[in-house]
Amino acid sequence: MLVVMQSHAMQAQIDKVVRVIEEQGMSAHVMPGATRTAIGITGNTGAVDKSLFEVLDGVEEAIRVTKPYKLASREMKRDDTTIEFAQGTVGPKTFTMIAGPCSVESEATMLKTAEHLVARGVMFLRAGAFKPRSSPYSFQGLGLEGLRVLEKCRAKTGIGIVTELMDTEHASAVEDAADIIQIGTRNMQNFSLLKRVGKCRKPVLLKRGMSSTLEEWLMAAEYVMAGGNYQVILCERGIRSFSDHSRNTLDLSVIPPAKALCHLPLFVDPSHGTGKRAYVPAMALASLAAGADGLLIEAHPEPDRAMSDGAQSLDFAALDALLARLKALAPAFGRTM
Amino acid sequence: MLVVMQSHAMQAQIDKVVRVIEEQGMSAHVMPGATRTAIGITGNTGAVDKSLFEVLDGVEEAIRVTKPYKLASREMKRDDTTIEFAQGTVGPKTFTMIAGPCSVESEATMLKTAEHLVARGVMFLRAGAFKPRSSPYSFQGLGLEGLRVLEKCRAKTGIGIVTELMDTEHASAVEDAADIIQIGTRNMQNFSLLKRVGKCRKPVLLKRGMSSTLEEWLMAAEYVMAGGNYQVILCERGIRSFSDHSRNTLDLSVIPPAKALCHLPLFVDPSHGTGKRAYVPAMALASLAAGADGLLIEAHPEPDRAMSDGAQSLDFAALDALLARLKALAPAFGRTM
Amino acid sequence: MLVVMQSHAMQAQIDKVVRVIEEQGMSAHVMPGATRTAIGITGNTGAVDKSLFEVLDGVEEAIRVTKPYKLASREMKRDDTTIEFAQGTVGPKTFTMIAGPCSVESEATMLKTAEHLVARGVMFLRAGAFKPRSSPYSFQGLGLEGLRVLEKCRAKTGIGIVTELMDTEHASAVEDAADIIQIGTRNMQNFSLLKRVGKCRKPVLLKRGMSSTLEEWLMAAEYVMAGGNYQVILCERGIRSFSDHSRNTLDLSVIPPAKALCHLPLFVDPSHGTGKRAYVPAMALASLAAGADGLLIEAHPEPDRAMSDGAQSLDFAALDALLARLKALAPAFGRTM
Amino acid sequence: MLVVMQSHAMQAQIDKVVRVIEEQGMSAHVMPGATRTAIGITGNTGAVDKSLFEVLDGVEEAIRVTKPYKLASREMKRDDTTIEFAQGTVGPKTFTMIAGPCSVESEATMLKTAEHLVARGVMFLRAGAFKPRSSPYSFQGLGLEGLRVLEKCRAKTGIGIVTELMDTEHASAVEDAADIIQIGTRNMQNFSLLKRVGKCRKPVLLKRGMSSTLEEWLMAAEYVMAGGNYQVILCERGIRSFSDHSRNTLDLSVIPPAKALCHLPLFVDPSHGTGKRAYVPAMALASLAAGADGLLIEAHPEPDRAMSDGAQSLDFAALDALLARLKALAPAFGRTM
Repeated sequence: MLVVMQSHAMQAQIDKVVRVIEEQGMSAHVMPGATRTAIGITGNTGAVDKSLFEVLDGVEEAIRVTKPYKLASREMKRDDTTIEFAQGTVGPKTFTMIAGPCSVESEATMLKTAEHLVARGVMFLRAGAFKPRSSPYSFQGLGLEGLRVLEKCRAKTGIGIVTELMDTEHASAVEDAADIIQIGTRNMQNFSLLKRVGKCRKPVLLKRGMSSTLEEWLMAAEYVMAGGNYQVILCERGIRSFSDHSRNTLDLSVIPPAKALCHLPLFVDPSHGTGKRAYVPAMALASLAAGADGLLIEAHPEPDRAMSDGAQSLDFAALDALLARLKALAPAFGRTM
Repeated sequence: MLVVMQSHAMQAQIDKVVRVIEEQGMSAHVMPGATRTAIGITGNTGAVDKSLFEVLDGVEEAIRVTKPYKLASREMKRDDTTIEFAQGTVGPKTFTMIAGPCSVESEATMLKTAEHLVARGVMFLRAGAFKPRSSPYSFQGLGLEGLRVLEKCRAKTGIGIVTELMDTEHASAVEDAADIIQIGTRNMQNFSLLKRVGKCRKPVLLKRGMSSTLEEWLMAAEYVMAGGNYQVILCERGIRSFSDHSRNTLDLSVIPPAKALCHLPLFVDPSHGTGKRAYVPAMALASLAAGADGLLIEAHPEPDRAMSDGAQSLDFAALDALLARLKALAPAFGRTM
Repeated sequence: MLVVMQSHAMQAQIDKVVRVIEEQGMSAHVMPGATRTAIGITGNTGAVDKSLFEVLDGVEEAIRVTKPYKLASREMKRDDTTIEFAQGTVGPKTFTMIAGPCSVESEATMLKTAEHLVARGVMFLRAGAFKPRSSPYSFQGLGLEGLRVLEKCRAKTGIGIVTELMDTEHASAVEDAADIIQIGTRNMQNFSLLKRVGKCRKPVLLKRGMSSTLEEWLMAAEYVMAGGNYQVILCERGIRSFSDHSRNTLDLSVIPPAKALCHLPLFVDPSHGTGKRAYVPAMALASLAAGADGLLIEAHPEPDRAMSDGAQSLDFAALDALLARLKALAPAFGRTM
Repeated sequence: MLVVMQSHAMQAQIDKVVRVIEEQGMSAHVMPGATRTAIGITGNTGAVDKSLFEVLDGVEEAIRVTKPYKLASREMKRDDTTIEFAQGTVGPKTFTMIAGPCSVESEATMLKTAEHLVARGVMFLRAGAFKPRSSPYSFQGLGLEGLRVLEKCRAKTGIGIVTELMDTEHASAVEDAADIIQIGTRNMQNFSLLKRVGKCRKPVLLKRGMSSTLEEWLMAAEYVMAGGNYQVILCERGIRSFSDHSRNTLDLSVIPPAKALCHLPLFVDPSHGTGKRAYVPAMALASLAAGADGLLIEAHPEPDRAMSDGAQSLDFAALDALLARLKALAPAFGRTM
């Protein structure tokens, strides 16, 4: 159920609706929009009586939501979600670059990378302190020490930090260190983890599961939002298919339907999506053209010496060239960068 | 095996190489490039002796080709293939639109469509006279009568005709009526049909099979080229995957690797790829950005009255808007339209 | 529309129903069952008036069929279809083996194989005279000469012949030579070819397309049946998936729903399905257990010398061992072999 | 690296090898086999010197293992793994049934089910106390209270308990309550969870991820084993494909290659694999025929009243009929039940 307030509704009227919802043992999710506020109801068992709300002052209408996801849906919130950071805004008017190496490496390498990015106007540095590796015998990341390195990069350069959380155990540590908490493709349906980041107060970048339908992806976002964290960024990173020309099948075709159904920002990771650095720039430009709000790009000062996934990392010259092309094209899509 | 001629090689030297190849019972495929001519050898059983050619005048080197496709490969022909039509050029410097209804409909509808397209500078009209329908009880197309309608459209407006060939029986009729012979996704590995269009002297638009790997697709092009028809246009139209947000999963990620391995023009069909008209423009723009050479778009004066696939057809207003955006963007990708 | 006759309906009453159907410009398909006859109607444009038939003598009811396939559906024909051959019966009470090399090879090899099979009670020899090969440079089969070899095998041993038809051009030749005409996976939606074999009077073994849904497969069978050839055998041979442990993903799980929806015999080809001879026996036994009516198995006197697909061929010792296990198990599934 | 001991090697010689491995900072995994003991080495960084071990008494040879999984591989342990329970043995000589409802329901329902199962000789009861649900608004299971219900069932009937663990937080509670800890398909690459159950001392049933390759699945088993828990049971439960005839595509074809590469027991879950109860028995029989070691079957006294997944649950009559057929067939596959 979604309670849509009149455009001139006052805060006291909104508070009253929330109180009525909570008195019924349900949860209220207040979602302010550009012209009006909507209040989502979750936690109901069985149907909710619309008339309960339609009689309250300031309420325009109460709408039954039929999609299995509610908080993530356009029915609940028509306007695109924007997320504000110290470094700038993520949303429909901007095109945001997140770049950096696959894993956190030495402090020197990370600082060099952060400084390079900040000098080019890149808002976010990405690097994994905790790494999901398919082999137990592979390098598993620097762990907490890696988070320290990332925090130093932010302290020295002001860059925002994007890093992956793999388990509830490290949720507080990652929440403290990160500006955006990344949930990886393998954990998109790790529901315990999704519930945990629903309690975090940092935005969550939610990668699409490698065999996830659009609905399952939006339901995963719903898990986070149902916990009270409405700042979710979706990230397409390639799906599993029979196709073998690249590491994964980057599914840019999901962008228009995802944008039609859901108000959340949507990024693309063409580095994991293709697995080959030569294919990254074309897919990055196509992401902008297809309607994405930003990119997650692997970049490394010396890709051939990267501790993991060097084959898909851009070097700085290639990253700079890509940034220049994106900046030149962004206005044609109503965005600044 | 590929025999690469010196850049100043004379025609007589090229002829001599061809003669030597044919004396060995093999086939020679002369492929002139921007700076030099290469001669592909096919039809060999077992390894070919390189020294046989390297001693001939005008030969720079003989190269063993390891990919299973030869004539389609960049190893054989480094430069992008361009194809010249009365209506203009298809290739790396242009961005070509092919538009029209799914099926050939009444002469009035087709003429109206052709005139609209020509007025906007669109080079090609597409429409199926022979329709591959999954049900034997569905409308199977107007057949030869449909070809007559298409020929009238060309006669009256000068537009080029793109139409599908489904079997060897109608090969001559379609070759006569069409400027580009379309091979549909379901026939991508109909090898008898591929061999037949290898004998045609009209360019072939070869749709990717819905579960075809890149290599299988290039091998299908190779079938056509091995028959002597080197004018093949590849066309991505969506693959089968678990994903259910659209009719097929349009695989734009195949463009960079296809372009890296193969010199042929590559088009995208976002209408079949998505199955929903609302998603077509974003995917069309992304195709340009990803490196495609053109588009195949379903358009109809009254989509809701189309005889088939109306849900994925643009109306003329939407088509015009898309054309305007593509024309504005094309120069940023080194193309004119 | 399906007209179900009363169980005691006379031939004259059936003939009358057929006449009424044809007078309406539609086609009648008379399908005798164990207890009653049903008459399928195809070729209607728009809805058919039930009352037209329900007033006729001997008619029990007229049923609207909602599945897109009619003739192939259990709604049309409740009883399992059996097909009679000189060599025996294919259907629900038997378990039928079709075995032989991938391609027709020398007359000596083929005769040796046929004699071995006949001695073990195997009813059918399979081998391709026309071979769909992904490369134009690969061996394309012996062609008409291969058909001659197969005919000699039948003449000398009495074995039934199963061989692939790739194009309408060779339809008569293959129909003459074969007891069962095979349509390969790549041609499952070659609708021109399906229509052509609908006119043949030999049973058709229709392989599932490698990315075909169950409905598309049954629609392909419907194409053949709509042409008047009701003797279709379905054959599962592995689908395309992300999975890379075998050449294709043999989909035994399609057997129960296919059997629930369709009355046609269903075979399994575990040789192409797995691509590895070591996995063939387990999948063959599982096919019997899952409800299949027979198998298509690659077998060769000397697999390592086979002209194609040797890696998936059983040698005669392995084939004999498999036959012995199948014969022992068949009665547990209500079948003889 | 794998150190293979001579068949008459003494315990002191084995201990010495372990000591040498640990002195190098690596981990030793002692794996006794039917005729000889092998000792796996993990945790090495870079290549290990074979000669270090080949000079020790009792060592037959040291083998470099090239697969990315070691402890799970046949190279490491040739003999099939058997796992002993109070209720009986899981392994190559038996065929084991695990049955029960999707979710833990009322104590009365669970006890009724457990008693029914024990009376038919079924060793294990399955039911989820913690449920991974795609919607945050769906019933999430009874949690710890559900574990109490399961413990009561075991206390009263002696049946073994199989239940899912979704996060590290509840690992101890589930380990205490369960005889087999189930890891669900969505958590197959939740590496933190895999590491945690590697520390448990109860066997782990590891469901295949819905888009997991065989190698990724065995690597997930390797994660558990690398932690010291060698009692892993693999469980196929259907993969994601384009195919829509059932909820998932049950991949029985993975059984022969999994058995060839890996010594662990392998079960099949045809209930989730098909999603339809009518298809379960055929797939269960086929699993036995294909080489599986057991089944996971959803069964419920009143499927139409089940709290989740009723459509795929067998009622007791259907379960009993299936058990009777499996018991009759098992000896033909060298198994007792």
